[in-house]
Amino acid sequence: MASTNLTFTNTAEHRAWLASQATLPRGFRVGTTRFEFTPFEAEKPSAMTLTLLAMDTPTADFGAVFTKNAYPGAPIVIGRRRLSEPRLGAILVNNKISNVCAPGGIETAERVCAAVAAHLGLAPNEVLPSSTGVIGWRLPEAEMSAALPAAIQALDAGSALPAAAGIMTTDLYPKIRRAELPDGASIVAFAKGAGMIEPNMATMLAYILTDAIVPRESLRAMLSRAVNASFNAISIDGDTSTSDSVIALSSGKIALTGPDPASALDAFEVTLTRLCRDLAEDVVRNGEGVHHVIRIQTLGAPDDAAARALGKAVANAPLFKCAIAGNDPNVGRLVQAVGKHIGAGGQNLDASHLRAAMGGIEIFAHGQFQLDRKKEAALTAHLKAAELYASKPGIDGSFAAPPPFPPHERSVEITLEVGSGPGRAEVLGADLTHEYVSENADYRS
Amino acid sequence: MASTNLTFTNTAEHRAWLASQATLPRGFRVGTTRFEFTPFEAEKPSAMTLTLLAMDTPTADFGAVFTKNAYPGAPIVIGRRRLSEPRLGAILVNNKISNVCAPGGIETAERVCAAVAAHLGLAPNEVLPSSTGVIGWRLPEAEMSAALPAAIQALDAGSALPAAAGIMTTDLYPKIRRAELPDGASIVAFAKGAGMIEPNMATMLAYILTDAIVPRESLRAMLSRAVNASFNAISIDGDTSTSDSVIALSSGKIALTGPDPASALDAFEVTLTRLCRDLAEDVVRNGEGVHHVIRIQTLGAPDDAAARALGKAVANAPLFKCAIAGNDPNVGRLVQAVGKHIGAGGQNLDASHLRAAMGGIEIFAHGQFQLDRKKEAALTAHLKAAELYASKPGIDGSFAAPPPFPPHERSVEITLEVGSGPGRAEVLGADLTHEYVSENADYRS
Repeated sequence: MASTNLTFTNTAEHRAWLASQATLPRGFRVGTTRFEFTPFEAEKPSAMTLTLLAMDTPTADFGAVFTKNAYPGAPIVIGRRRLSEPRLGAILVNNKISNVCAPGGIETAERVCAAVAAHLGLAPNEVLPSSTGVIGWRLPEAEMSAALPAAIQALDAGSALPAAAGIMTTDLYPKIRRAELPDGASIVAFAKGAGMIEPNMATMLAYILTDAIVPRESLRAMLSRAVNASFNAISIDGDTSTSDSVIALSSGKIALTGPDPASALDAFEVTLTRLCRDLAEDVVRNGEGVHHVIRIQTLGAPDDAAARALGKAVANAPLFKCAIAGNDPNVGRLVQAVGKHIGAGGQNLDASHLRAAMGGIEIFAHGQFQLDRKKEAALTAHLKAAELYASKPGIDGSFAAPPPFPPHERSVEITLEVGSGPGRAEVLGADLTHEYVSENADYRS
Repeated sequence: MASTNLTFTNTAEHRAWLASQATLPRGFRVGTTRFEFTPFEAEKPSAMTLTLLAMDTPTADFGAVFTKNAYPGAPIVIGRRRLSEPRLGAILVNNKISNVCAPGGIETAERVCAAVAAHLGLAPNEVLPSSTGVIGWRLPEAEMSAALPAAIQALDAGSALPAAAGIMTTDLYPKIRRAELPDGASIVAFAKGAGMIEPNMATMLAYILTDAIVPRESLRAMLSRAVNASFNAISIDGDTSTSDSVIALSSGKIALTGPDPASALDAFEVTLTRLCRDLAEDVVRNGEGVHHVIRIQTLGAPDDAAARALGKAVANAPLFKCAIAGNDPNVGRLVQAVGKHIGAGGQNLDASHLRAAMGGIEIFAHGQFQLDRKKEAALTAHLKAAELYASKPGIDGSFAAPPPFPPHERSVEITLEVGSGPGRAEVLGADLTHEYVSENADYRS
């Protein structure tokens, strides 16, 4: 197995937990390798990790959901084509450069896929490329091809952790989740992404592997619904990456059992959706500079889409996000964000029915704020309790000693009731901190 | 005249320039007063400035444009009613608390207006209230009424500067612009606002005073168009205040002259629009923590509204704003923001025709980035040249020595050509810096 240095996660409990989630389902192997190169557009040398995911046998049962950005990366263009191919057998992921609208980017990615295919005995169109990192720069094709044999050499069927770590860019730790299915089958999903997240610079990539037998069309339909309820309901910064991808693969080793085939698939979808939601929350909790995760429950909207759009509007309101970072319960900014969204014609919502609560404390009802000194103090206490870590970085964004990851699972809890309609949604957002600015003011150097 | 401490602007040139812009048109007087109080919702005492603007004679020729936020402040609710009143004679502005959705807020504001009217011999509905500051808190009515006589005592017809300074919250310096008209008439406009600006926390308030005779309906139509081309085309953080107001008043002392009445009004509108654009740029240049002003020219869109929406989408993209703060020409994030907007269905724009330039350097054309090491270096130089001040604050956002305000008039220049349509727009945005986060993580304390 490829060795990966996991010092980025600095508590023994976290390392043990990650290991417990990482056992690969049957039929999959992963391997990684790392090399240095100098980008075409830059003066300074850089490093790239290649992560190879290989199936024992190519599968027809795969699906993918890609970014809606109008300037998708070359891997997205190719990935959409692969969806109509009969089989997929391997995925090659590189970090550092996302291969988006770079001259010749599609041709380069196809040549790299063909090189992978030649090594593994696959057809070129059975290999899917994935890239994450700087937008606009060119892939170092020669160096990638030269590094491929080392990744293949590293392929191992034991743990998905090297892959979850290999695809990282600004992520603080690998994000991986496992769920067990009947008869020893399992789903293991891992993701990267910490900025340009409204899935959506660094990029969000997620891979979902199962050894359960799930037919292609069922897998694609369930994946689409699960992504809507999870990755499409999170936002770190409202930026939508040009490379977001969620890819699901079934190796088809174990039959799903249940009273009937339909209910077995239903149970699979429930598990898949929960796994995607947990992994999406991991992405937010690990977001660039995030000190508070904000969970926004919206209910009473005309429909779920309207509820989600309102939650996103709050999750992306910079002033409110800054106030949360400062443990300041400036709920005026929360209502401002709701009012901007509705005032701009948001989804036929009616402003007059708003009831808003933070940490279970009512702050707005009957068209008015419901505030006093006691509530202000209780709201501040709620924010402090949800702070992920209190240690502060220097102005350059670095910590004297890294805070423990991950610290706890608490969030800032916000409820927005906007009427009596059936629409509801849960959106996960994050605060806006100095570390976010530091990390993104000088990302490429 | 009320004395106002202008030490927030620390260059003699700036103080002299502000004074040169501040001569009030005929028919107007301003006065300010400051007092301490403890908000109903807070433990700590605070300070408020009252700014009173009084006309020698109430005028029928006034207009106003208010926020589209669905939770408008009490002064906005009242202001909309005042638009159908026959005359306006005075405006009372308070900072610190914006009187938005506070229990009894409208009644409180009306009682304060009535108190002003009683002092000045006006009818209560001839007084317009304006408030800016914390959203959700209650106005200190008793303290405000007690302070009124001092503001009236201070009324003076000389300079608008005490008013431009009195309405400030987190503004670094007063923003005031003057234009001369034929026959000794003039327009003087002043504004406050540094955050929650997509007009739009503290709030943006702007007042435009002229002694030229401009009939009410003409004034309102011209104001609406000028605001669209100026205040509605700026964004510091994409947050839309609950209190934004632009108010125009004509004292009607001097007739506009020209070949014919229509062309005289046309010339007035040209001047008014330029003044509004200059003042809007002042607001962005003075935005919370702003180190770079970003000027985005969009052209070739189907219509002006589509061009402006695209410019706003770029102006509000957090990762791109952070990169600009770091003098990092991460143009991949620029294209990401364009692609997110178009991919989300933005205004029927066609992604395939994008030509993008920064600082006059082409960075994207024919579906591909056009980058090399030389261009990267030139783009970095452009960003450094546009930096407003290079001094860095401590982690608490405060400067050892304040940087000079205002430093220069340069901007980061971005051009986005999206097709061959007639639509074009100029949008002004700003970078996202540590100072913005510091200022807004702890605004209310």
